[in-house]
Amino acid sequence: MEFSSKLIEKAVNEISQLPGIGKRTALRLALHLLKQPKDQTVFLSQALLSMREDIQYCESCHNISDQAVCEICSNSNRNHQLICVVEDIRDVMAIENTGQFRGIYHVLGGKISPIDGVGPSQLNITSLVNKVKEGLVSEIIFALSSTMEGDTTNFFIYKQIADCDIIVSTIARGISVGDELEYADEVTLGRSILHRVPFEKSLKNN
Amino acid sequence: MEFSSKLIEKAVNEISQLPGIGKRTALRLALHLLKQPKDQTVFLSQALLSMREDIQYCESCHNISDQAVCEICSNSNRNHQLICVVEDIRDVMAIENTGQFRGIYHVLGGKISPIDGVGPSQLNITSLVNKVKEGLVSEIIFALSSTMEGDTTNFFIYKQIADCDIIVSTIARGISVGDELEYADEVTLGRSILHRVPFEKSLKNN
Repeated sequence: MEFSSKLIEKAVNEISQLPGIGKRTALRLALHLLKQPKDQTVFLSQALLSMREDIQYCESCHNISDQAVCEICSNSNRNHQLICVVEDIRDVMAIENTGQFRGIYHVLGGKISPIDGVGPSQLNITSLVNKVKEGLVSEIIFALSSTMEGDTTNFFIYKQIADCDIIVSTIARGISVGDELEYADEVTLGRSILHRVPFEKSLKNN
Repeated sequence: MEFSSKLIEKAVNEISQLPGIGKRTALRLALHLLKQPKDQTVFLSQALLSMREDIQYCESCHNISDQAVCEICSNSNRNHQLICVVEDIRDVMAIENTGQFRGIYHVLGGKISPIDGVGPSQLNITSLVNKVKEGLVSEIIFALSSTMEGDTTNFFIYKQIADCDIIVSTIARGISVGDELEYADEVTLGRSILHRVPFEKSLKNN
């Protein structure tokens, strides 16, 4: 791509470094900003900069937060003995939206993935293991995605806390609510039969 | 969506104002920036700001440029009597890529579209008409997209220059090179038969 202006070329190059955005989309976004009032670009730039510079991570659960300890961890109404292990802030938001979880979280910041160069030392695993060893936890729920990387991460953490006297569970895998059985893959369907729940219990959860 | 941080909420709100980017994608982009070195966000913000503040438009063709007159308009090797009328900078780039056009451009900055609230006065039409009336032009090629808005814009301009002694043409519509005939829509196929070209001429153009 040849640009008639170095300024627009630079902007397109920077925008297209974002994941899922190619040069053509970047050019479309740049031209959109040029057509909008100058304020929009100013606000966007400022919001990005202040987010990157001033963001904090909760000391306890490593979730993104505006204070040293996040709102969930500082809420005394929640069960601090019950920890849900998740990959990132999006998973925290998704689980909070269900309204079904009253414990606290532990955000790993990723999954162990040698292909992407992510090892255990880059994740917030040590602080989780320490919490467990200090006897502050009664149950851990693994809520990582059901991929090879997720399973590896689960197993890596499990090995380090296996000798502690706590319950270790993982979120249930099964057919999504509203899904047709015939379109489900066999692994999911198999697990949903293997881990079937008493019918009366399933009624109460609704 | 409830965010655990006002900073990230603000960034997501600003990013999601860009066209085609919803809140979820915006959050993904924000989290990506947080994982990358701080420099990337700084460079992105600076590039956007300096593009928006310092960008210039060519005095002659209204293309985006770093100088008062763009490189194409200041190139004396190009035919300044032949003007190709396009919607925006992306069309200039696309036509320049073909290497088939040695005239200059006139960038309208959009199409007449009452639904989107774009009237003729918001487009660079007057300066084009003036150029024609001053006798600086021998041929105008309309290269707007083949939509109702494009056709309306073509016709609006044509009416104002119809009494001038110049050639007014429009780019050929027809079957794309490499396309199967059976999948072409009937309007396109009909036009390609109506505006057929002598076979020997088509050989020379390859």
